[in-house]
Parts: sequence; structure tokens; C-alpha cells
Amino acid sequence: MYHHLKKLMYTVNVGTPDPRFGNMLLEQFGGANGELAAAMQYSIQGLNCDDPDRKDLLMDIGTEELSHLEVVGTLARMHLKPMKSDRDAAHADPLIAIAGGGGVSLFNSMGNAWTADYLKITGELDVDLRSNIAAEARAKIVYERLIDFCEDPGTIDALQFLMTREITHMKAFTAALESMGKPALSIGRIPPTPELVNQYFNDSTGTGDRGEPDSRGPWNQGGEWKIVDAPAFQELESEKTGTRAANGHSRSEAQMNKSTSAKAEK
Amino acid sequence: MYHHLKKLMYTVNVGTPDPRFGNMLLEQFGGANGELAAAMQYSIQGLNCDDPDRKDLLMDIGTEELSHLEVVGTLARMHLKPMKSDRDAAHADPLIAIAGGGGVSLFNSMGNAWTADYLKITGELDVDLRSNIAAEARAKIVYERLIDFCEDPGTIDALQFLMTREITHMKAFTAALESMGKPALSIGRIPPTPELVNQYFNDSTGTGDRGEPDSRGPWNQGGEWKIVDAPAFQELESEKTGTRAANGHSRSEAQMNKSTSAKAEK
Amino acid sequence: MYHHLKKLMYTVNVGTPDPRFGNMLLEQFGGANGELAAAMQYSIQGLNCDDPDRKDLLMDIGTEELSHLEVVGTLARMHLKPMKSDRDAAHADPLIAIAGGGGVSLFNSMGNAWTADYLKITGELDVDLRSNIAAEARAKIVYERLIDFCEDPGTIDALQFLMTREITHMKAFTAALESMGKPALSIGRIPPTPELVNQYFNDSTGTGDRGEPDSRGPWNQGGEWKIVDAPAFQELESEKTGTRAANGHSRSEAQMNKSTSAKAEK
Amino acid sequence: MYHHLKKLMYTVNVGTPDPRFGNMLLEQFGGANGELAAAMQYSIQGLNCDDPDRKDLLMDIGTEELSHLEVVGTLARMHLKPMKSDRDAAHADPLIAIAGGGGVSLFNSMGNAWTADYLKITGELDVDLRSNIAAEARAKIVYERLIDFCEDPGTIDALQFLMTREITHMKAFTAALESMGKPALSIGRIPPTPELVNQYFNDSTGTGDRGEPDSRGPWNQGGEWKIVDAPAFQELESEKTGTRAANGHSRSEAQMNKSTSAKAEK
Amino acid sequence: MYHHLKKLMYTVNVGTPDPRFGNMLLEQFGGANGELAAAMQYSIQGLNCDDPDRKDLLMDIGTEELSHLEVVGTLARMHLKPMKSDRDAAHADPLIAIAGGGGVSLFNSMGNAWTADYLKITGELDVDLRSNIAAEARAKIVYERLIDFCEDPGTIDALQFLMTREITHMKAFTAALESMGKPALSIGRIPPTPELVNQYFNDSTGTGDRGEPDSRGPWNQGGEWKIVDAPAFQELESEKTGTRAANGHSRSEAQMNKSTSAKAEK
Amino acid sequence: MYHHLKKLMYTVNVGTPDPRFGNMLLEQFGGANGELAAAMQYSIQGLNCDDPDRKDLLMDIGTEELSHLEVVGTLARMHLKPMKSDRDAAHADPLIAIAGGGGVSLFNSMGNAWTADYLKITGELDVDLRSNIAAEARAKIVYERLIDFCEDPGTIDALQFLMTREITHMKAFTAALESMGKPALSIGRIPPTPELVNQYFNDSTGTGDRGEPDSRGPWNQGGEWKIVDAPAFQELESEKTGTRAANGHSRSEAQMNKSTSAKAEK
Repeated sequence: MYHHLKKLMYTVNVGTPDPRFGNMLLEQFGGANGELAAAMQYSIQGLNCDDPDRKDLLMDIGTEELSHLEVVGTLARMHLKPMKSDRDAAHADPLIAIAGGGGVSLFNSMGNAWTADYLKITGELDVDLRSNIAAEARAKIVYERLIDFCEDPGTIDALQFLMTREITHMKAFTAALESMGKPALSIGRIPPTPELVNQYFNDSTGTGDRGEPDSRGPWNQGGEWKIVDAPAFQELESEKTGTRAANGHSRSEAQMNKSTSAKAEK
Repeated sequence: MYHHLKKLMYTVNVGTPDPRFGNMLLEQFGGANGELAAAMQYSIQGLNCDDPDRKDLLMDIGTEELSHLEVVGTLARMHLKPMKSDRDAAHADPLIAIAGGGGVSLFNSMGNAWTADYLKITGELDVDLRSNIAAEARAKIVYERLIDFCEDPGTIDALQFLMTREITHMKAFTAALESMGKPALSIGRIPPTPELVNQYFNDSTGTGDRGEPDSRGPWNQGGEWKIVDAPAFQELESEKTGTRAANGHSRSEAQMNKSTSAKAEK
Repeated sequence: MYHHLKKLMYTVNVGTPDPRFGNMLLEQFGGANGELAAAMQYSIQGLNCDDPDRKDLLMDIGTEELSHLEVVGTLARMHLKPMKSDRDAAHADPLIAIAGGGGVSLFNSMGNAWTADYLKITGELDVDLRSNIAAEARAKIVYERLIDFCEDPGTIDALQFLMTREITHMKAFTAALESMGKPALSIGRIPPTPELVNQYFNDSTGTGDRGEPDSRGPWNQGGEWKIVDAPAFQELESEKTGTRAANGHSRSEAQMNKSTSAKAEK
Repeated sequence: MYHHLKKLMYTVNVGTPDPRFGNMLLEQFGGANGELAAAMQYSIQGLNCDDPDRKDLLMDIGTEELSHLEVVGTLARMHLKPMKSDRDAAHADPLIAIAGGGGVSLFNSMGNAWTADYLKITGELDVDLRSNIAAEARAKIVYERLIDFCEDPGTIDALQFLMTREITHMKAFTAALESMGKPALSIGRIPPTPELVNQYFNDSTGTGDRGEPDSRGPWNQGGEWKIVDAPAFQELESEKTGTRAANGHSRSEAQMNKSTSAKAEK
Repeated sequence: MYHHLKKLMYTVNVGTPDPRFGNMLLEQFGGANGELAAAMQYSIQGLNCDDPDRKDLLMDIGTEELSHLEVVGTLARMHLKPMKSDRDAAHADPLIAIAGGGGVSLFNSMGNAWTADYLKITGELDVDLRSNIAAEARAKIVYERLIDFCEDPGTIDALQFLMTREITHMKAFTAALESMGKPALSIGRIPPTPELVNQYFNDSTGTGDRGEPDSRGPWNQGGEWKIVDAPAFQELESEKTGTRAANGHSRSEAQMNKSTSAKAEK
Repeated sequence: MYHHLKKLMYTVNVGTPDPRFGNMLLEQFGGANGELAAAMQYSIQGLNCDDPDRKDLLMDIGTEELSHLEVVGTLARMHLKPMKSDRDAAHADPLIAIAGGGGVSLFNSMGNAWTADYLKITGELDVDLRSNIAAEARAKIVYERLIDFCEDPGTIDALQFLMTREITHMKAFTAALESMGKPALSIGRIPPTPELVNQYFNDSTGTGDRGEPDSRGPWNQGGEWKIVDAPAFQELESEKTGTRAANGHSRSEAQMNKSTSAKAEK
């Protein structure tokens, strides 16, 4: 059950309304990484969650995002209001001007209606927490860009508050994930195929514009990594040179698939 | 520049086509966490990326996902083909049957057309890598559920291959992110407000159905965490009991906002 | 600012989960006339509203709808949960089964993601109240149909509660509109063209399948109504018989347009 | 069966084309409250309607809206045509310029493709008429805003004609609804729960920015109204003070639910 | 200006309603290749068209498609009506059942709302006619598939009528295009680069599953065609073998780009 | 299986970045007729195709379009990059600026996310080839318009390359269709109704603004064409003058339907 208090979570002071900026601000109101997306993603994950502790976490933050939605909406409303009568202002967002009379609605900066396609909800708690960590990182960078484009000190204050809270949430979700003890290899129940999981397919090759060689880093060398070089290219050469094995498999194919023979029984 | 080799990355053998399962499989073809989403998300992040090493990583995996798209599409095509003429089969997905003649198209299991709204691309490399880690975790769990609903051994083999590769990618993206040295607090350039960032707002309270107290865990206690309890509720009580401070701020508001006074200069 | 209480607004008891019914129930969760649509439409209208009294009304009801969303979501979750492992259940909604693991998300009964295109928000208070009255009427009839298809007594109880509340809201919005004293002719500032506004264009004619004549009712006869019969047809006949007036206007056109000559100055 | 006459319902004269205004005008061509939405909503309601008289009304007005669509489209085409070759004009709507060559298409002012998600069609006649009354009110206010932003007298003439017709339709739909004798309480077949329907939940409280008390008006006091004050807040206090009743129900919950015991048998 | 006659263009007789088939039939009502798409595509192309003769053609056929929309909608309505009260019927399309009360709306067979994204309108007449020829071909095949899945003779009669008309339209559009004398090479004003236009890039190679060689046909050999074999593969080999020319261009690149040197001045 | 070569299919040189033009260019990246649409349409048609030769054609061109997508994306990225920090540039596309940090994503020039609703895939090869011919014609004209609005010579070079290739593809698809020997009348298996197929319904009549008569051309006269004049109008007159035949059919209806009596058996 929800209750609404007629007071913003952060008091909003706007000096001179800036409709162009108000239009940009809609990214955090009705945009893909905005506050409604955050509120809905966490609250609905919470609704699906069977772990009472992390469910509480999801509802705490989901509810805070609703309060953020109200702060952002109030800010945007203040910046967009001149659109009702000012022609130049209206050109910044004719949808808000003509259909909304200068009021906000759940659109992003290009007038796209908010859609639940923005949400990432799987019903698998550790997976959902990973989605939330990424979502908060995106929200942080979007607030930062808005601050970069903002010239009104009062608005910047509010954005700084909101941006900070996203980092708070990111820390909380990270701690909640870590406390579950579910690294990549233990997601779900079915283990990945043992050797295959360590093969890195080098599917993009060439020297690039500046003659640089294919990159190597901790993401494809060291530890258990084993590089499979240009599998399609190897395959093509196999066909040309007739080096396909008797079983019809080529070098690269054999390399890629052999480890699947030990596939875990379902 | 791309080249296509007329050979699947994983050879596909389907015993008895199962149109209902073929319909489910479309989640990984034209669905929100499917292979096109993966291919596009990584390849376009790569296109925007200024770090040549991690750009190569993004293109390697983005290209592999195109090959996965082809494998999944071929599997789905085999399972869906009977829809062209079999009435019962057609009921499983009338869009594929009537509009597609039993052929696949970029829809999910409920016939929704694929949309780029599924993608998470910010142009900030460490943020994008976090989105990719989460995306791979989601893809893993979706493949696992498909395996759970699948009865055809050949199809299970292919799904196990594809599922394994998602974990491979997740490991690679994780290593790439870690090698950047960009934890939550260092995303972007603007630091969060110091004290505020450690406050956990307990916005969802009550004893729940089973009388359990508010949860505590590493996500809101220990370390630097400081809990702000039920701020809206405190505010309401302040109003009722007249305990608003002379400056018009109530207890909870003061608590939440004071730390913003030291807000970093932009 | 929002607060969430860990208690449903209406206690939910589900006997035997019915996944097919759970799928239908999603219409009121993520559907066009569902609870999120209601919560967002009223709350955002409230955010745009300059009339403090009716703004409070909009926020009261907008917040109640959030609590309804939680009740419906909890009900749906209970009915859909078997989809995670039961193949037959999964066929009722493969998107929920495969992508959601049996958890709810913001989709309707056909798997369409919720979109803000469902909302009607104009920033003109009396117009918005009319949209809300219509929205509540639609929600009422959708709950009634769900009750008709529901076999679980506990679920019916909850639906009856929710359905009743929609009528409560409809009454409140109607009273709020009536108290504004803004009938059709006084919407906005620009008055309609005097005579033209009373002309009823009979644009669909013929005797129909059962030979019935064109209908007459209080919507086109009596009071100030004046019928313009089949204007396009009259025009065609004018052309054929050469009865166009010297000014090039035909009978019907003259009839339709003459009253615009007295058009109100802007 | 439809026939098209090569003559506009209202003759259109445009002085100087204004591409920025043409872009705004698209709201009434391919926008959420535009003429296609009106034409489709009424015509399809008509197609579903079993009441021959009101079916005729729906087809009359649905057909008139098709003629309006043609008028608006012709106006927009005239204003947008310079986009084909004029760079500055093209910036007002690059989609129309590049993809459309200066021709119109079913987009709104922000380039969103028209979608049937805009429509409100329930197959319950009195409910549909309420949706239509609201739709006409929205269309009226949108035309008024377009007139406010328009500088071309010929265009204003046509918009005044179209705006007037929306009020005509609103009057007709209102008369048709009233003649059905179906007030809020008699929508559908299942009556709302008697006492519960008169309870107004005061879910948004506090003194607001200007210290104003919670609002009271005919929408929550007088007649049968009974206010339930801040139910979630009461519940929270109950939990704290231990005033839960023996049956586990708190004050507010008892208040809200008791009247459902007399719920009408289905 | 439009007029509606209360008589269907083709009289509809339905024996036993078949809700599953009614659901399929929605593909031609609110689906991607359905009658609304046809009506809107041609009518709006007509609105943009400056050639009075072909504009008339577009309006003739656009208007006929509106009449088809009415026929299909009436058929679908008859087949879907049992959904209002029959649970099994309702499962075939819960959106129609719950939200529509058994009435049609602008959805396809999977409940997707019709969108103008289905339309192909460029404002270039000969290009638009090509889009229309393709659209009619698609509509023909969709009607054929519906006939294949239909068991009701009266419905088949109506579908045969509608299917035939699509071929009529296809013939008319083809004749209209041919009479313009605008083959591929003369689309628009800017000619393609002379030699480059005749190069066929063989970007998909390999022997396939059945060892078949790369295909040759009139689409890549004979006449002016010149094949460029596996350009990316050649490029890779160039890099490996160091056969890049002094100017840094490899064999395949030189082959592809040289003909652009004579590029027509804009 | 795909391979990616780190080299663009056409080397891109951009002089001065032009963010407004970069925004327009997105039409060919994430727009309705852009390169992703082409790549996906052809590749997925190829995946469904049972004719090995034309399947190879579809994969060749589908793969080339992926390389085009990369070229267009690289061009757009260069033009849009200043949006990250330049306020004026950001106004050209706030979505790219704020959500994308100046990087590209799969949006069109108005910020609409790419959707598979743009694709035309039927699984009937000759029908698909017709859709492809039309798609290439549209892509050609869009590139031409982009060239018209472009001021950077290096960008124009790349666009000329890409535009030329679309004509190449159009020629290849046309040749592939012609080699199938499937004219309009032989699409699918069910023949159209013999006489009915030659009737042209003149559904849009009148003298127009300039008094021109109804148009005649090879699309409605000559050969087998037979004109049915204004059927709805004739019907209306029949009703008025009572000239309905004894069987209840009017003149025009008899004319339209009689030829269906010989309808081909299914």
C-alpha cells in the first residue's frame, strides 16, 4: 500500500525556465533509463521476489524512485511551462506544447512514449540485481550529462541530489548481489559446458585503420582463456584447401564443438 | 566489413518439430534478451568506442552473436515449419502461420516485433560493459528455461552450446570492466555528494504478512551505511506534531539534504 | 514523496492458481485500461495541475491506483507462478514463462509491453477529468469481464473490491468536473462557430441490411440540431446536374460553410 | 461501403507555407488525439455496435472524421512541402524531409508513427460513448492550441471549422449517452459493493508548499461520501502502537474492507 | 470528402462462428499487410501526389480498401463474438475477450496494435507504386493462407472476393508504374556510379550443408554483371600475405572502389 | 557463420562534422528504410528460403547490408560526436546527446527506436523479392535526399557508393524474380476470380479542384479492364429510385459479385 506526502523529496528551485533543457530533462522522466523505469523495474522485481530481505530492498528503492519521478517531473514542468504560449519555446518539443499544453507527460526528449520494453525483469533474483546495477550506472551518467547541459543552479542542485542517490542504489544492489554468492558460473542451475566456456572466438580480425594487431587483454588471455582464431575464416580456408576431416568437420569446427561432448545431462 | 560463411556455427539437428517450442524459442531470436539484441548492443557500442582494445572485444562478441542469431533462427524455422499447413500448430503462433507462412521473423514468443528499445547503449564504456554483463546473465537464464521446456535432444545440444557461450561472454565483459578500474563511485566525472551517498532511505516499512521486521543486510548496514527511516512518515509526523524547524525543514528533510551543502562544484 | 507499507490494500487469497486466468488478469496490470495507466494518468495530471484542490484529488486517486497495481500484480503473480515449470501452463503466456520465469511484468494479456500511449493527459483540467471519467468506466467493465471469467472465490473478492473503487473514482471525477462549470461549449477559450456547431452531417446513409431508415434521436434532432443530409452525395449530384452556384460552391458546401463567416476573432 | 468525392469538406487556402507549423499540425493527422484516431475509434465502435440507431451515429461521425483527416492532411502537406529542398525547413521535421520528401505520413509532431494504442474501444456502448466525449474534448483543445500557434488566416479558418465540428460531435455523443440512461452506478451488470463505493481514500496528505490543508469538495464530502484518512499512515501507526485488532486487522483496514462482506453474489 | 453507405461491398454470411479463425482473420484487419494498412498507404500517397491521374488511381483503390476493411471487420466480429462469454473461445485472444468484450479492434492475430510503421510512403510516385505492388502481393498470399485455414464456406466466399481484388490492384499499380517509364536506373535524379552498379559482391560463400557451390543466375552473371568474390576474405588474405598495394588499398578494395572515381557531380 | 573484418567496406572521410546532418543520416542507420532493415529483411528471408540459389542471393545481399550499416554508423558517429559537449549541437538530437553521449544507436532522425515492424517477410519467395525491389527503390531515394542535404564532400562520396549499391541490389532482385516466372496472376496457388479480377472500381469521383474528369489510363482501360463506376453512389441511387432487383441486389452489386459464382474450388 502506498501513501503520498504533498512534499517533494528534494525541494526544487528553478530560476529562469529553459524549455530546451526541460525537453532534455524528459529523458529522466519518461526516458529509457529514467525514474519511472527504475521505479517499475525494482518494484515489480520486488513483487516477484521470494527472498523477504532483498524483496524489502527492492521495495525501498523502488519507492524512492517514485519520489524521484515526482521531483524530476516537477522540475521538467517548471522548465516546459512557457511552451504553452511561446512559439520559440514550443519548437523545442511540439508534442509537449500542442498535445500537453506545456505540461509533462511520459515521453522522452524525442517524444517517444515510455514503454515497458525498457525494463529488465527476469524473476531470477541475482540476474535482476545485475540488471539493476547496470541500470543505476546508466542513470548516473545520464544525470551527469544533464548537469553538463544545465545552466540553472537550482536545477543543478536537484540533479546532483538525484545523481548521488543512483550511486547509493548501485552500492546497495552490488552489496545485495555479493551477499548472495552467485558468480557468473553459478547463474541458474545448468552448468555451462566445461571447456567451451573458456574459448574466446576472435570473430573480428584485421589490422584496422591504424595497423594495430588484434587486441589481447584479461578478457581473452591468461587464466583459463583459449583463443579460437577467426573460426569462419579458418573454415573457409579448410574448404578451399580440402583439409576437412573425414567426419566432415573442419579444423575450427572441431575446435569449437568437441568440448560439448561432455555436456551435462539435463 | 562482414563476411558470411554458409555453415552454422553449431550444427543443428532437430528430431520431431515442436511448433509450441518453436514459438518459445523466438524469445532468443526476436525477443528482448535474444541474439539480435546482443549482436546489435555490442556491435554498436563497438562502433562508438574509442578504446581500440575493448572495441575489438565488442566487435568479436557482437559478431559471434550474429552467428548465434543464425543458429537460433534455423532451429526455430525447423520447429515452426509445420505451421504452414497444420491448423493446431498454427494456433501456437498465428502470426508466424498466417503472415509468415511458417517462416521465422523478428518477433518474440508473443508476436511482438523486435525493437531497439531493448538495447542499452550509453557511449560510456564502463557503463556499457555493466549493461552487457547483465544482458549475458539474462540470456543465460532464458536459455536455461528453454532447455527446461525442450524435449528434443538435438535442440537441447544446440541450446547448451549457446547458453555456454553467454557465460563465456559474461566472463570476458567482467574482465574487461575490471581492467578499467572504474568502480561505482568513479563512473563519469562528477562525484556524488559525500554523505548523502551513504544514506539508505527505508521507504518501504511495516511488518509484512508474516510479521517480519524491516530487513537489514550489507546493502544498508555496516561500513558507511546510515539508515534514514521512513522519511515520508517522519515528515507527516513532523507536520502533525509541529516539530518543523524554524527554517521550515522537518527532521527527515534536514537529514536527507544537509549533506548536499558540500556539493562538488561543477 | 511516497511511502510504501508492506501490506496490501486488500488482502489476497487465491485457492487454486489458474495460469490462463492469470494471463487475462494482466490486462489490469500492464494493459491499456489497467492500474498503471490509471496511476500514471492521474498522478501526472496532478503534477501539471494548478488548481490545488483538484490537484489533491488527482494525487489521492493516483496514489490509490498504485496500491491497486500492487494488489493486481500480487494476484497475477499467484496465478502465473506455475508457468515456471508446467509446460501446459507455460503455453498460456510463453513470454511470462520463458522471459519472466513465471513472474509478472508490465505486459497485457497478449504480451504487449505497457506504453504511455495509453495515457490521456492534456494539461487542461476539465478535459483531463473527462478523460478520467471515461477511463474509470472502461476499468469498471474490464474488471466485470474478469470476474465473469474467474472461478476462484478469493480472486473474485479482490476484483469486486477493485471494481467498486473504480466507480468511486468515477463519481469523484464527475463531481469535480461538475463543480468546475465547464460544459462542452466552454472548453478552452475559443468559441465554436455558432451555426455550424448545430449541424449534424448525415455521412452514413442507406437502408442497411434490414431496411431500416436513417436513425433519428436526441443526438441529431430536436433543440438546435439541423441535419445536413449526405453532403458528399449532394455534392456529386450537384456536379452531375450542373447546379453549382456561380461562385463554384454547391448546395451542400454552401450549407456547411456559410456559418463560418461569423467566425470569432482570435 | 465507402465513396470518396474529389472535393475537400472544407476548402483550404494557405498563404505562406510554414513548415514549423506544418509539423505541429501533424498532431491532428497522425497524433494521439487526431483525426485518424477519431475516425477509427468511432467507425470500429460502430462495427461492433448492436444498437442500430447509435451504430448509425457512430458511422456518421466516423465517416466525417475521415473527411477531416483529408482536410488536415492537405493543410499539412501544403505547409510541409518546402521541406523537400529547404535545409532550414527540413530541420523542423527531418523524418518528413528525408523519408517523406516533404509529404505527409501518419506521424505526430515528434515523428511517432500512429498506433492503435491511442484508441479506446470496449464494445460496451455507454462506456464507448464516454470515451468519445472525452476524445472530442481533447481534440477541441488541441485545435485551439494549433490556432494559437498559427499565423496564416486561411489555415486558421480551416482549423476553426474543424474545431467547431468536434464540439458538435461532443454534443451528439453526450445526447446519445444521456438517452441510454446509464449513469456510473449502472455500467455493466455487476453492482459495486454498497458502502465501499462511497468511501474516499485520502491517500495524499500533508500541508503542501503553501501550508494548505487537504482539500474538500463535492468529490469527497457531502451526499454519501465518507472520508478514510491516510489509510497507509493509519496502518503504520497501528503497527507501531500495537492497536491491531485481535483478528489481525488494523483500524484502517477494517474501515476499508468491512463493507465488502455484503458483496453481491455473482 | 467521404460518404459511407450502410451496405457492405460484399455480403457476408457466416455459418458457425470460429473464434480461433476470427483471431487469425485480424491479420487482415489490424495486421501489417491488412486492409487498414492498404487504405492508409494508398490514400496518403494520393494526398501527397502531384500527378492528377495517378492520384485518382491511388484514391480509387485507397477508398476501396476502406470498404474491404469494413468487410473484414464484419467477418471478424462475427467469428469473435462468442469470446464475450465462452471461456475456451476467450483463450484464443484474451485481449479481444477481456478488453474488447468480443468486439474487434485494430490488433493483429497476436494482439499487436496497428502501427503506421507498417506503411511505406516516400512521396516519390514511382517508388510508392513499387511499394504498392509488393503490398498487394503480400495481401494476396495472406488471404490465400486464411482461406487455407478456413472451414466456413461463406467466409471463404468473402475471402476469395477480397483476395481477387488485391490482384486487380496489383495489376493496376503495375500498369501505372510501367506507364511512367521509370526503371531502376532512373529512380530519382542522381545516377548511380557507372561500373560499381554492375558489381555483384559475393559476401556469403562456402559449400553449404550439401556441398553446393556458390549459386550463379541472371542476378549475378550475364549481361553487365561482374562478380567480386568474397571481398572481406580477399582483404584478410591481402593483409596476411602483404599484398596490399603501395597506396594502402588491397585488391578487393581497389576493385570495389575504383569505379567511384568517375562519380557524377551532384 | 559471420566474420567481421576491421575495415570498412568504403573508407569514410568526414571534413567538418555536421550534427544536424548526422541526425538526418540516422534514417539510414535505424530508420524504416535503412541498412539494418535491409540486412535483416534479406538475411531472414534467406533463412526461411528453400531455393538454394536464391537463398544464396539473399544472404549475399543481406551480408553486404550489414557492411553498409557499419559504414553509415561510422559516418553518423563522426557527425554526431560534437553533441556530447556542444549545446547547440545537442538540440539537433537530445536523445543522442543525453542518452547516447554523442554516440549512435538504432534510432531514426526523430529518435524512434528501430522496430521489426519495418520488415516485410512472408516466406513466399516471389512475394519477398517484390518487397525487396520496393525496399531498394525506397533506400535509393532516401540516399539521394541525404546527398541533397549534405555539404561534406567525403560524406557525399560514401553516400554515392551506398546509393549505387541499392540500385545494384534492385537489379539483382528484379532478375531473380523474373527468372522465377511468377507474374501477379500466379502468386500463390489459388487463382483469383476470373471476371472480377478485371473490374476497376471507380471509388473516388468528382471533378476535383480544377474540373478535371476522372482519369483513365492503362491501369483502368484497355485490355481486359472494365470500369465499375462509383458503386456506392449507384447503390444509393438504386435505393432511392427503387431499382433494386427482385433478388434484393442492386445494379452495382450484381455487377461486382456475379463473377464470383465461378469461384475456384478450394
